[in-house]
Amino acid sequence: MGDWMVVPVRIELLTTGTELLLGTTRDTHGAWVGQRLLGLGLRIARQVTVPDGQAVGKAMRTGLEEGEVLIVTGGLGPTSDDLTRESLAEVLGLEMIEDKATLRTIEEFFASRRRVMAEANRKQALVPVGADILANPNGTAPGLYLAPGLSGRCNCAVFLLPGPPRELYPMFEAEVVPRLRALSGIEEGPDCVELKFVGIGESDFHQGVDEQLESIGGLEHGYCARPGEVDLRLIGTPDVVKEGRLVAETAFAHELVSDDGASLEEVVVRLLTGQGMTVAVAESCTGGLIASRITDVSGSSEVFRYGFVTYANEAKCDLIGVDREDLLEHGAVSEPVACQMAEGALRVGKADMAVAVTGIAGPTGGSEGKPVGTVFLGLAVRGGETRVVKQFHPWGRDVFKRQVSQSALNLVRQALVG
Amino acid sequence: MGDWMVVPVRIELLTTGTELLLGTTRDTHGAWVGQRLLGLGLRIARQVTVPDGQAVGKAMRTGLEEGEVLIVTGGLGPTSDDLTRESLAEVLGLEMIEDKATLRTIEEFFASRRRVMAEANRKQALVPVGADILANPNGTAPGLYLAPGLSGRCNCAVFLLPGPPRELYPMFEAEVVPRLRALSGIEEGPDCVELKFVGIGESDFHQGVDEQLESIGGLEHGYCARPGEVDLRLIGTPDVVKEGRLVAETAFAHELVSDDGASLEEVVVRLLTGQGMTVAVAESCTGGLIASRITDVSGSSEVFRYGFVTYANEAKCDLIGVDREDLLEHGAVSEPVACQMAEGALRVGKADMAVAVTGIAGPTGGSEGKPVGTVFLGLAVRGGETRVVKQFHPWGRDVFKRQVSQSALNLVRQALVG
Repeated sequence: MGDWMVVPVRIELLTTGTELLLGTTRDTHGAWVGQRLLGLGLRIARQVTVPDGQAVGKAMRTGLEEGEVLIVTGGLGPTSDDLTRESLAEVLGLEMIEDKATLRTIEEFFASRRRVMAEANRKQALVPVGADILANPNGTAPGLYLAPGLSGRCNCAVFLLPGPPRELYPMFEAEVVPRLRALSGIEEGPDCVELKFVGIGESDFHQGVDEQLESIGGLEHGYCARPGEVDLRLIGTPDVVKEGRLVAETAFAHELVSDDGASLEEVVVRLLTGQGMTVAVAESCTGGLIASRITDVSGSSEVFRYGFVTYANEAKCDLIGVDREDLLEHGAVSEPVACQMAEGALRVGKADMAVAVTGIAGPTGGSEGKPVGTVFLGLAVRGGETRVVKQFHPWGRDVFKRQVSQSALNLVRQALVG
Repeated sequence: MGDWMVVPVRIELLTTGTELLLGTTRDTHGAWVGQRLLGLGLRIARQVTVPDGQAVGKAMRTGLEEGEVLIVTGGLGPTSDDLTRESLAEVLGLEMIEDKATLRTIEEFFASRRRVMAEANRKQALVPVGADILANPNGTAPGLYLAPGLSGRCNCAVFLLPGPPRELYPMFEAEVVPRLRALSGIEEGPDCVELKFVGIGESDFHQGVDEQLESIGGLEHGYCARPGEVDLRLIGTPDVVKEGRLVAETAFAHELVSDDGASLEEVVVRLLTGQGMTVAVAESCTGGLIASRITDVSGSSEVFRYGFVTYANEAKCDLIGVDREDLLEHGAVSEPVACQMAEGALRVGKADMAVAVTGIAGPTGGSEGKPVGTVFLGLAVRGGETRVVKQFHPWGRDVFKRQVSQSALNLVRQALVG
């Protein structure tokens, strides 16, 4: 794991919600809060998850005893099992009062949506005496902050935050981060950069640059790998981060996609937009996933106009003019078909570039010569030579589709960066 | 949440791993173990997550004090920060011995893969005296089980399990489940059924059937909502589950998609296959997502052959014959265009049914009459009348695409079930 930095404040995270322990909902708060704290040079010392109800008060007591900062998420809703607010007041021996301004804000939230406030929502305006109210522009439940020493029973700072991510995340940025900076005495966190690479895996880094990165004193590095992509995270002073970055960029210059968290599809749409070009796609084995990823990006309609999901052989011939005889002779999963699909998509889709994929996703349909996982990718460019590459991704249907879409988008990216 | 059943055994889950608190890896053990226990009629009382290293021993002590069963995952690897085994022996005051049979198994694991065992792996054969060794056919780290009272320091049963899911899951089934049954005295778990509904939300259930379900004694029910879909979970004796099921099915007969965990796209492919029919799709605003979801299902090539991603207006006219004048007069997001897209996809795609969508995903492109979130869906059936429905999903680009794909697949499903 390397040498982790000194942690100036012990932070306890308490996530509440019966659904988190029943398997219906996966916890995402731990990872999100952990990542956000990392950017400040802080860590979660322990995360505790308990069901709604009685267990919350007990877990709070432990968190308050052992932590310097206790962050609690969830349980601020209007229903009877949302008891975080009440539990905290009880544990700390603080009186609860109805906050007029908060009540008005909640009433306005409903009024602006032309709905009547339910009586149950009234309790969301109850706050322990002395607490700061943290505005929630995205929901009815305000957050609460209790400064250290407010109750006399403990010297721990406490944040009560809403559970839904679209309420939690903005509140964390606006209200929690500045207070954590002040509490921890951290003016500025360390530099933290995340480089996204595609077409290589974590083991390439282990073999390629791990040792070099480890030899840079004070630099912390870590990986996050997903199918067809790996993020390298570098943390430290600006100088050492710069040094680490140079090592990674030098080793894997062609595979570096972004340094600002942008996804591969975002980078592709950006590049196409910048160069005033359009792309068409012809998909067999990915079944629409490449087109769907491109159109996940806002503004993609400027650069993407035509997509062909030619799942059947007939569709490949009908829509984008693949030659029937070539198809019979070489099979749908072959170099000539990938080539003709790309060129057909370019022509029919009136585009500047086109990418095509044809392969065997499995679990059935493989043969000895072309096992499940085999794929041919074609890239056609107006006025240029068509390129076909063959790849092999034998890791199940989901991963196959994802991997092939990565490779296809990366072919487009590489052609655009030259 | 309703009345949860009496929990016969207090189970503590301790998940270990620095990466879980840094945001690089999301915890999946809590949800998986929770779900698996639910099927046995058991619950996780508390989940604690700590970084590798010193914190593990301390968290173990707490778990042993308060739990009747402590399940620990992770930290059984060969590296220096994998200390779960050692921490447990220390906390319980048990001696560690090298287990000859385990060492041989580890050596064979490497030999069968033609690799040399590293010296570091030797410590994986160390076991506390008296512990049961749990076989790990998928990795080098065996699991460990300590029966209650083994150490004299506590009366808690302890499982140490490997972290990687492909090692953890099979070991849990083979070694943990039978021991938990014996410890808890549970012969058979309760009936547990999950009904998937589409096109309605959790609030429809709150208003429609919540009260009725709550009035069924001994029945536990819970919801899991995602965009355009909600799962209703019913737990109890076979009789009360049957009664609850009847209530929900009666209220929302048209919206019930599956009772076996099958996704909407799986159900659609099943129905099409069963009726020997094919479907084509024409997508504007979903940009390929509907086709991609259909082709996520193995065997979909029997029922899906042509997909048209007509993102640009010109593509709608070129590929599936939408009338240029209608397009100009009514706009791309309109009833006539949705109708012609569906009929064009049916014809050009030589299918038995076709579904088409055209809408405004946003964030830009909305107008007063057609705000962001507006969508028209068309369904054409060979020899039948084409149907167009208008919907409004103003919740951001991602959710919009997902919701519209749900609605489109559900239109197909409804047509197939009649």
